Amino acid sequence: MRDATALPALDFKTISLADDGWSVRIIDQTRLPHEFDTVSLRGLDDAVRAIRDMLVRGAPLIGGTAAYGVALAVNEDPSDAMLERACEDLMETRPTAVNLRWALDDMRTTLLPLPESERRAAAYVRAAEIVREDEALCDGMGAHGLAVIQDLARTKPPGEPVNILTHCNAGALATCGLGTATAPIYRAHAAGVPVHVWVDETRPRNQGAALTTWELARAGVSHALIADNTGGHLMQHGMVDMCIVGTDRTTASGDVCNKIGTYLKALAAKDNDVPFYVALPSTTIDWTLKDGVAEVPIEQRAAEEVTDVTGLADDGSLKTVTVPPVGTPVANYAFDVTPGRLVTGLITERGISEASAAGLAGLFPERARQS
Amino acid sequence: MRDATALPALDFKTISLADDGWSVRIIDQTRLPHEFDTVSLRGLDDAVRAIRDMLVRGAPLIGGTAAYGVALAVNEDPSDAMLERACEDLMETRPTAVNLRWALDDMRTTLLPLPESERRAAAYVRAAEIVREDEALCDGMGAHGLAVIQDLARTKPPGEPVNILTHCNAGALATCGLGTATAPIYRAHAAGVPVHVWVDETRPRNQGAALTTWELARAGVSHALIADNTGGHLMQHGMVDMCIVGTDRTTASGDVCNKIGTYLKALAAKDNDVPFYVALPSTTIDWTLKDGVAEVPIEQRAAEEVTDVTGLADDGSLKTVTVPPVGTPVANYAFDVTPGRLVTGLITERGISEASAAGLAGLFPERARQS
Repeated sequence: MRDATALPALDFKTISLADDGWSVRIIDQTRLPHEFDTVSLRGLDDAVRAIRDMLVRGAPLIGGTAAYGVALAVNEDPSDAMLERACEDLMETRPTAVNLRWALDDMRTTLLPLPESERRAAAYVRAAEIVREDEALCDGMGAHGLAVIQDLARTKPPGEPVNILTHCNAGALATCGLGTATAPIYRAHAAGVPVHVWVDETRPRNQGAALTTWELARAGVSHALIADNTGGHLMQHGMVDMCIVGTDRTTASGDVCNKIGTYLKALAAKDNDVPFYVALPSTTIDWTLKDGVAEVPIEQRAAEEVTDVTGLADDGSLKTVTVPPVGTPVANYAFDVTPGRLVTGLITERGISEASAAGLAGLFPERARQS
Repeated sequence: MRDATALPALDFKTISLADDGWSVRIIDQTRLPHEFDTVSLRGLDDAVRAIRDMLVRGAPLIGGTAAYGVALAVNEDPSDAMLERACEDLMETRPTAVNLRWALDDMRTTLLPLPESERRAAAYVRAAEIVREDEALCDGMGAHGLAVIQDLARTKPPGEPVNILTHCNAGALATCGLGTATAPIYRAHAAGVPVHVWVDETRPRNQGAALTTWELARAGVSHALIADNTGGHLMQHGMVDMCIVGTDRTTASGDVCNKIGTYLKALAAKDNDVPFYVALPSTTIDWTLKDGVAEVPIEQRAAEEVTDVTGLADDGSLKTVTVPPVGTPVANYAFDVTPGRLVTGLITERGISEASAAGLAGLFPERARQS
């Protein structure tokens, strides 16, 4: 094994300040995986479009993009009116995104008390900090998750990979850094621990098939794409050493709301004694919630996400095809809740916690006390 | 409720003798769900192509088509040489299909002792019997499964549907009759018991999305298509009253080998106290097997089944698109094994059995004794 403290260097950044010092570069994720295009955001409207049209996605990356969106707005016009308009316009792009609200509140609170002449510089400084804070959260999860992977590697014959199953894209592409679920994987890979990743395609939106495969391939991490139906079979046959997934929202009791289908994998992991970990920045813990299944409302999304599939056609263009009979009724729930009893541990930036009220209170006593 | 003995009348037949009395009509299932085409088989080569190119699929329907394929061959030429060639050519189309081998052995054994002049008539008679025997198996499963659905209907407020989740297409399209898992559903619908079916799309081959939706819509049965990831969430929220699936192979101990992903739904059913039934003709029980997970080899299929999706394009043509990055490594296991401990009951043509050695031996003492 190489130096276990080696930090992985991905050769792409989801968001960064351009060399001109004021415009912002993002990856157009709607073109992935078949094209890798970066786009330059040069004003508020560009940032609004990037979030609304999902050129960027993933809660942490949306937060970072919104922060830079405010900086771009202030760069155009440092007035109170523009600052307020920027926060309103950006908030409307994805009204349910928690990180978006948080980033905008932070930018507004930072900038509004300042004289107009100081706002531009302060906005860029604060936006960069917000992005770096997310990178640091990813690095924290990566360090703690790396230890879990290293422990598993010691139980395997030398050279045999630790087989890790993941669902959806809780990857670098969803954050400003190494990702949540992927951070430990990239750390292990950089440290010379052999890893192999089973990538759930993650129907209906195929984020695993389109995005997780792309970023793992780009980072040189061994992986194979599987239908979401496959994980149980692999676990029955000892082909999965651990699962790591991300989460959109975690209750104070350790229940995990994540992409639909996560619960099924957690059940299979439990049935086959496979450790099931969830990687999350503590900012996604909702300290007011106790019972995830009962209390977390699950969004229903458009039928077309299930019926229609977009991909690369013969002629090199992107095309969309409809699989079921036209007009087939559809139910499309976006998330499910995995009860904490099925989760081996929550990998946070501060350490690994049992997925329970006691576990989380032990790791975050200052937050648990408030609620 | 209407008469509970009412038999459903589907308005399509997967296989039937044409009005001319000798050619055979099948549905070209490769055109479903976007086109409903019937095809006329007029000789051995047509039958070989229909099975090999999957115009017909589903073990029982393949058996029926092979039987008629022998009749078509004998219609062309009643010699021993032709009979042997027909059995060989048909066997090669899908070498692992158990019903195919069984139907061909039956036809050969029936016809070979007869003088050439009697073979043609005997072949059509025996092929029709093989098809009718499969219809009778489906009717048996339908009758016993209907009782389960009726019992559940009595626990619901009047008029509220019994919500049934199914995986893959264990439907009429896979058999010569009402299907295996679908037979109880069609019987309930015909008897006026309100039912609603959650149809797993069944990645990677989308048999649920393309075929089960089609036949349920054609029969007027209420249904909704869901991503395979969705069933656990529905069960957590009381939206599934029972699961019914089919099986390719059942062990003497009640373990069920079925389409990949079945095991995950059975785990979710167990976790939420939802009854999980498997419908099977007793011909699919392999009395020599005790431990499904350890003993049933699981076929791996082509990567393209996972990476490429075919459907209806904007211009009305069928097109294929590739979702992940071109060249992405894939693992594509076709089946998994659901241990009998997760199965509430095996719905057979003879009655409902516990999914255990004792249960199956009780229902089929003559078979269990032999093994």
